[in-house]
Amino acid sequence: MKIINQLVLPHRFEVLELRTAADVLRAIKDMQVRGAGLIGAAAAWGMYLAAREAAEGNFFPDLEEAARTFKAARPTASNLAWAVDRMLRALAEERLKGPGAKPALLERALREAQAVADEDAECCRQIGLHGVKLIEKLAESRAGKPVNVLTHCNAGALAFVDYGSALAPVYAAADRGIPVHVWVDETRPRNQGASLTAWELGQYGVDYDLIVDNAGGHLMQHGMVDLVITGADRVTRRGDAANKIGTYLKALAAGDNGVPFYTAFPSSTFDFTMTDGLAEIPIEERDSGEVLRISGKTASGTVEAVQICPDGASARNWGFDVTPARCITGLITERGICKASEQDISLLYPEM
Amino acid sequence: MKIINQLVLPHRFEVLELRTAADVLRAIKDMQVRGAGLIGAAAAWGMYLAAREAAEGNFFPDLEEAARTFKAARPTASNLAWAVDRMLRALAEERLKGPGAKPALLERALREAQAVADEDAECCRQIGLHGVKLIEKLAESRAGKPVNVLTHCNAGALAFVDYGSALAPVYAAADRGIPVHVWVDETRPRNQGASLTAWELGQYGVDYDLIVDNAGGHLMQHGMVDLVITGADRVTRRGDAANKIGTYLKALAAGDNGVPFYTAFPSSTFDFTMTDGLAEIPIEERDSGEVLRISGKTASGTVEAVQICPDGASARNWGFDVTPARCITGLITERGICKASEQDISLLYPEM
Repeated sequence: MKIINQLVLPHRFEVLELRTAADVLRAIKDMQVRGAGLIGAAAAWGMYLAAREAAEGNFFPDLEEAARTFKAARPTASNLAWAVDRMLRALAEERLKGPGAKPALLERALREAQAVADEDAECCRQIGLHGVKLIEKLAESRAGKPVNVLTHCNAGALAFVDYGSALAPVYAAADRGIPVHVWVDETRPRNQGASLTAWELGQYGVDYDLIVDNAGGHLMQHGMVDLVITGADRVTRRGDAANKIGTYLKALAAGDNGVPFYTAFPSSTFDFTMTDGLAEIPIEERDSGEVLRISGKTASGTVEAVQICPDGASARNWGFDVTPARCITGLITERGICKASEQDISLLYPEM
Repeated sequence: MKIINQLVLPHRFEVLELRTAADVLRAIKDMQVRGAGLIGAAAAWGMYLAAREAAEGNFFPDLEEAARTFKAARPTASNLAWAVDRMLRALAEERLKGPGAKPALLERALREAQAVADEDAECCRQIGLHGVKLIEKLAESRAGKPVNVLTHCNAGALAFVDYGSALAPVYAAADRGIPVHVWVDETRPRNQGASLTAWELGQYGVDYDLIVDNAGGHLMQHGMVDLVITGADRVTRRGDAANKIGTYLKALAAGDNGVPFYTAFPSSTFDFTMTDGLAEIPIEERDSGEVLRISGKTASGTVEAVQICPDGASARNWGFDVTPARCITGLITERGICKASEQDISLLYPEM
């Protein structure tokens, strides 16, 4: 399994080869791979590697142990558990179908992991096709001036197998020649906006400006944002959305200024077992070192972490917050756009 | 004139001597001194130095030229213009009183600059005495657990001549033995929270945790903030408050979660010539390098700036935003606490 090492972007582009389930687990935990869809796809491939390893031992018990470990790696992202459970289900089904010979099981695991990845890319492409309509409509009233989209964190091609969720409509707009400009929140503490979103928009040739996370409210007060699109890490059946910490603040500012706020994600991000996101979605608390220190490129070109506070400073570091459905204008999924309400979601997902 | 060089905190404590008006101007522009009250006091002393220099030349024309230059140094802070105009008025008054001999004018300038500084310290002490009542009241229902105060940027002793505005109530609470804990927003792009607020709270022995600017909404959603107090750089006659960019987002989150949001400042921060803060307060746009690079201490102990984004990235950087009066629970000034409305402000400031 080959991954882009997101920890060394934007200063270096590095492809890593992961050869064991433990390699994949570490890559997810250390955030060499991150982003809702990519975590899911990586975990699916990790489960395939785990199956290969389990084939040497006690197949299903070993695999279930691997599944537990993967699911605990990042508690907030629902795609992770979704992908791992899908792999387990596929293998259980395969066992019921026939003699459960290991080669057949491994072949099925390989197919399923590939399907998870392929479907993720296709879902994101569809999200782009639905979401671009919003940008197209806004462009009509902009008389050739770019539509200003604000996004938080990175929910682009890097965060998925391809296209991304929040950025898929932006890329689709760029493909159609619609003038679009993105306000990129730097997204402290890990700066996924500054390091990843800025990088991938630059690679695609989309016009953007990096801003601090504090700036979005001011921009919206002054009519400089036409549309906010963010990704999501877990969305409940009524549309409460967990996403990178700080998303909720942008949703509030959008609401206060009449700016539409959309959450874009593939269906695999839904957690239909949950209703009240604030009460139910577990929020990961991460190492405080991410707040105390920031990594970047020094004048001499090396990448170093610098401490931005006094020695011995104390810090806390929650990774996500929950934007209540009432603050969200709409959800963009591969099936279309709907309101963030249990009723509207159930029309799009009647089987759930 | 001696200043604490805020640019090298928290990694080094350095006192600089400013000997000319140009030295003071540069210190204000480069933000070696920053913060509403301190900019005012520094400008008053700068005008005293300018008066000494003007005494060698064309006194009043030279002084008015110096006044214009000082006022342009930081467009958003109203204490700056307030202090400079006060110095000009004092000297005009002195000229009317007598022969306008230069020694008498200089003596008056010295006295006025000292008064600006002394009054700033006394105003902040009074802000502390008024504001601490809010913390005291909250402490009653906390059963010995600390009252959690969230603040943005640095509006502490470093930002004024002493005590600070937003932090004065916190220090007064600490002095009275009330358990208090401060959530310190790091305050990108210049990280005044991480470098200055964390430093001065640590020096005073007040318990705090540094958080990223994105975290406050999540904390408020989960009942972990009892009170928000921020400073202000300019407040209009109806109570719209310009403060460090990002303040508005915290005010929105406070409102959405029923957390009281107070703005603390000395009267010199009022700009009674303005009503609609969003339309009227000029917002400084600063160098984009502040967004692209972050300064801190490397593992080897040197202070370096690191680039957090791809080479060639584009960024924008506004220094302040305006929190509309409707989002503010109350104003804390040296005269007491009042609602953020023209009527309530006029009861406290009938002469304006």
